[in-house]
Amino acid sequence: MWRQTVDPGLGEKYNSRTKRLINKDGTFNIVKRGSEPRLYDAYQYLSNVSVGKLLLIILSFYLLINVMFALLYVGCGVENLHGVDPNLPPFLNAFFFSVQTFTTVGYGVLSPHGMAVNLIVTLESLLGWVGFAIITGLVYGRFAKPNVRILYSNHALITPTTEGKILQFRLANKRNNMLMELEAKVILMVQDVNYVRHYYNLKLEQSSKHFFPLNWTIVHHIDKDSPLHGLTPKQLEKQRAEVLVLIKGYDDAFGHHIHSRFSYLYDEILWNVRFKKPYDADDTGEIIFNLLQLHETEPVEGELPV
Amino acid sequence: MWRQTVDPGLGEKYNSRTKRLINKDGTFNIVKRGSEPRLYDAYQYLSNVSVGKLLLIILSFYLLINVMFALLYVGCGVENLHGVDPNLPPFLNAFFFSVQTFTTVGYGVLSPHGMAVNLIVTLESLLGWVGFAIITGLVYGRFAKPNVRILYSNHALITPTTEGKILQFRLANKRNNMLMELEAKVILMVQDVNYVRHYYNLKLEQSSKHFFPLNWTIVHHIDKDSPLHGLTPKQLEKQRAEVLVLIKGYDDAFGHHIHSRFSYLYDEILWNVRFKKPYDADDTGEIIFNLLQLHETEPVEGELPV
Amino acid sequence: MWRQTVDPGLGEKYNSRTKRLINKDGTFNIVKRGSEPRLYDAYQYLSNVSVGKLLLIILSFYLLINVMFALLYVGCGVENLHGVDPNLPPFLNAFFFSVQTFTTVGYGVLSPHGMAVNLIVTLESLLGWVGFAIITGLVYGRFAKPNVRILYSNHALITPTTEGKILQFRLANKRNNMLMELEAKVILMVQDVNYVRHYYNLKLEQSSKHFFPLNWTIVHHIDKDSPLHGLTPKQLEKQRAEVLVLIKGYDDAFGHHIHSRFSYLYDEILWNVRFKKPYDADDTGEIIFNLLQLHETEPVEGELPV
Amino acid sequence: MWRQTVDPGLGEKYNSRTKRLINKDGTFNIVKRGSEPRLYDAYQYLSNVSVGKLLLIILSFYLLINVMFALLYVGCGVENLHGVDPNLPPFLNAFFFSVQTFTTVGYGVLSPHGMAVNLIVTLESLLGWVGFAIITGLVYGRFAKPNVRILYSNHALITPTTEGKILQFRLANKRNNMLMELEAKVILMVQDVNYVRHYYNLKLEQSSKHFFPLNWTIVHHIDKDSPLHGLTPKQLEKQRAEVLVLIKGYDDAFGHHIHSRFSYLYDEILWNVRFKKPYDADDTGEIIFNLLQLHETEPVEGELPV
Repeated sequence: MWRQTVDPGLGEKYNSRTKRLINKDGTFNIVKRGSEPRLYDAYQYLSNVSVGKLLLIILSFYLLINVMFALLYVGCGVENLHGVDPNLPPFLNAFFFSVQTFTTVGYGVLSPHGMAVNLIVTLESLLGWVGFAIITGLVYGRFAKPNVRILYSNHALITPTTEGKILQFRLANKRNNMLMELEAKVILMVQDVNYVRHYYNLKLEQSSKHFFPLNWTIVHHIDKDSPLHGLTPKQLEKQRAEVLVLIKGYDDAFGHHIHSRFSYLYDEILWNVRFKKPYDADDTGEIIFNLLQLHETEPVEGELPV
Repeated sequence: MWRQTVDPGLGEKYNSRTKRLINKDGTFNIVKRGSEPRLYDAYQYLSNVSVGKLLLIILSFYLLINVMFALLYVGCGVENLHGVDPNLPPFLNAFFFSVQTFTTVGYGVLSPHGMAVNLIVTLESLLGWVGFAIITGLVYGRFAKPNVRILYSNHALITPTTEGKILQFRLANKRNNMLMELEAKVILMVQDVNYVRHYYNLKLEQSSKHFFPLNWTIVHHIDKDSPLHGLTPKQLEKQRAEVLVLIKGYDDAFGHHIHSRFSYLYDEILWNVRFKKPYDADDTGEIIFNLLQLHETEPVEGELPV
Repeated sequence: MWRQTVDPGLGEKYNSRTKRLINKDGTFNIVKRGSEPRLYDAYQYLSNVSVGKLLLIILSFYLLINVMFALLYVGCGVENLHGVDPNLPPFLNAFFFSVQTFTTVGYGVLSPHGMAVNLIVTLESLLGWVGFAIITGLVYGRFAKPNVRILYSNHALITPTTEGKILQFRLANKRNNMLMELEAKVILMVQDVNYVRHYYNLKLEQSSKHFFPLNWTIVHHIDKDSPLHGLTPKQLEKQRAEVLVLIKGYDDAFGHHIHSRFSYLYDEILWNVRFKKPYDADDTGEIIFNLLQLHETEPVEGELPV
Repeated sequence: MWRQTVDPGLGEKYNSRTKRLINKDGTFNIVKRGSEPRLYDAYQYLSNVSVGKLLLIILSFYLLINVMFALLYVGCGVENLHGVDPNLPPFLNAFFFSVQTFTTVGYGVLSPHGMAVNLIVTLESLLGWVGFAIITGLVYGRFAKPNVRILYSNHALITPTTEGKILQFRLANKRNNMLMELEAKVILMVQDVNYVRHYYNLKLEQSSKHFFPLNWTIVHHIDKDSPLHGLTPKQLEKQRAEVLVLIKGYDDAFGHHIHSRFSYLYDEILWNVRFKKPYDADDTGEIIFNLLQLHETEPVEGELPV
């Protein structure tokens, strides 16, 4: 008895098996052709790379620009630079002069002479100016955008309880910022023998949470209305079942809504295990929550949890 | 049988035929008189022009300011600049000095002398400072604001199906950013013989979509409750019918809501054709979505699609 | 028959007549004592003053800081500056040196000598650095925040129509940016003989508008359920009636919600007049909307508008 | 008769008494282990410290970087710097040269000589550039994020009224910015003898407020449906009762939603007192609101307030 089919916008009819829908980093596993390559995409790329990589890219651009201008100055004739160091090759003199111009340090020991070099200087110092503005925008942009890191348990569990089987997984905020008003949506995707994808909403025990300082365990009861009812691990594999997880929340510090996506493929679902509690109060009444214990499970034998 | 008239705020009574309501770039075809010209509008203009144009504008301002200050320095007497190059005309010496001051390079080979020139320098270096701040704000502002590019199919189609005629068009995200929680509203506008405009909501098969990595085909069934029911291409032309499309969504990367507008005039509606599917899985199970195929249609003959 | 009393949070019991609730600029007419003066308020002030005033403030700070540092350099002894101009007084030499340091122009003709001056230079160039960052933040902040200018008609009108009396006023966007999804709330406030304020929601013919490229006329029907029913201009004056207008919308370009407040005091309500239409199509079918005609009214005599 | 249990996401089963849930600054009293230390957290820290502390941190970094580069220049041999002051030790010469390079003042009296020093200069001036961008981002970031300071009355009161007992407390905006559309949620938390926490929603007389220029008194009627019904101060202490307050609103100037949290522990609840009114109109009809009177209470004796 399957219910609540939905169309989340991920396509239905395909001519073959497809790979997992949502990658582990939350992106969709879809290759888009014909999209416009744009400055904007470069900006988005730069505001997402690691800090080390960003610094490397900035350094590379900086060196590249200075090498280019150094070549221009050499092309004009180094004799048009005053104060060159005769012990250094012309290119290096021109390079250091370019650095002093681009960064607007301008010691003046090396200085431009004549019209051509002065015109290039006019351009390069403007470029340094604009380049600086770009770096500033980039640095700030990295921090200003919502930046959410949600840690999901490595596995989703199918756990027997006194009230029947449940599908559960849990999540926590990796960061120390305050996330609020969380909402969860969980969708089961299966592919039938004709490679047609079917999507089903899974009903949750609790689909929203006001605060998120601890972990949140999301629970779906596999009752007779559940699309998972009666399915075996084998059948999930055959249908290439994927549990899509969509989390929405609010970042209190930045005033932005945040979204996070995750998925569990059929082989990332463990059967007959349950989670251990990752937090408790210590002797002084202080509550300690250990993120590293988020993934810890234990087998369910004999007695069932209440 | 016409239903669901709405007043979207675009005026109803006019004394003559009017041009299309929504331009191809999503702006309204209305000329506003008496609005205040303001710095803020300049900012909006500058944060929307193409990058090339923006750089040209910056360069022009830069040259203009330096020419102005060069004239001031020449006015004060170039003898008040130390280190002038006798092989260059006074104006050029003053211009290069201005550049070195405005950008704060300040080599010092050219340097101010006496009170008047020093006061101008005091002003110009402050101006460089403030100008820089403005450029930085502008550059960052270009990236910080929502930036949505939605590609709409060139034509809306009226397609016969086994369940009756449908009006359909489709759209996709031109960019690689993640748009979510899309909502669509489609309004039919017709003008009667007295030039009075009438607006009707068109009921959609699906008016929202959770994700948007592929295309979204928006479908209106032309059943007997539809304001389009029984109309011919001729009648649409006579009433100067225009289909207004309003899309709302959420840009995940920037935490902003985004809006997009589009419209199909009566002569942009094709009859008896259908869309080709623009995406499918390749041999490896990878899903390939080709934006360039968004506009592709094929005639509907004999057999109808299921 | 008075209905729908509300408590908008503006206080109810007072011991005397009070001034108008909402000022013409949308602020509340309430003096708050004991609030913390903070940097943040300075920031808000600076991001709201006119551009001319802002530039003046920046210039003043710039001069002030340089005068202060000039005095420090003079205090250290101008003999510790190399390259001073003997024709200028020591203070001016120090001032120009300070300018060249603060703005990081640093020609080098004037240069620091000895420990004390060099330490001050170390501080001043850092200060220039930080000051620059503050100006940049301020300039960008001015543009990044929602910036709404809504023009309200100078008067609210009470107009007789074939369907009874209506209270109406209208508004338009002064700017050229795109405002969307507008919502209006109109509250009538009257003070009784004990100076107690009463608030009533006024029911609107249309309380929301999808687009806002033209004017929006907000209409309240004074039927028998209206708190205005049967009231005369005299009675409105005696109760010091004030019509509070709250507008909410969405700025498409910046992705921000915007709010605007306005109010009409009893003596800003005109009786038995109606508005003239401020827009129409010209010969070419172009729609012309003239903001300056927003306030124009005409008397209603004999025949009533349909 | 206890009703409306909720799960706000703060944990239920603990093995001992726990400390207060919400600290006086609105943070949760939970220690998180295993979260990733990240640059982002540093940014959040820096955008929350006091201005004085921020300036001190900037100054420290500035001095540290210049000391490091000074040591590098000394390491290369101070003879590679031209224009050193023989009266100052080599390190100080190198330090002042570093300052002039990092801030891009570059007087040129001190200037680099030879390859090694020039390469370090190339790096340091880039670093100054990037450092500046970071400071600018930080300064702007401090102002751009929502910044709410809500003043809560020091105590919650349980006040007898003619309609029975009420629990009340009040709040006001410490700042002069405009907060709108406030919503309140109040939750009672008690711990039973097994240290299990129970959460109950408290029904409010008015749970939202359109404007917030004055104080807002939040009132819960302790009727027979209230979880507080019949409880004595002793019992509240025994259950370690905590009243959790969650405020949500909208900052009009910045277009951001804001949140605020507060709590009253059992010993911060006063019995049989009421609040004094903190605002009134003066002789001229001007409304004066005094924040400092927000905490003022008076005992309720004999006669009850109407």
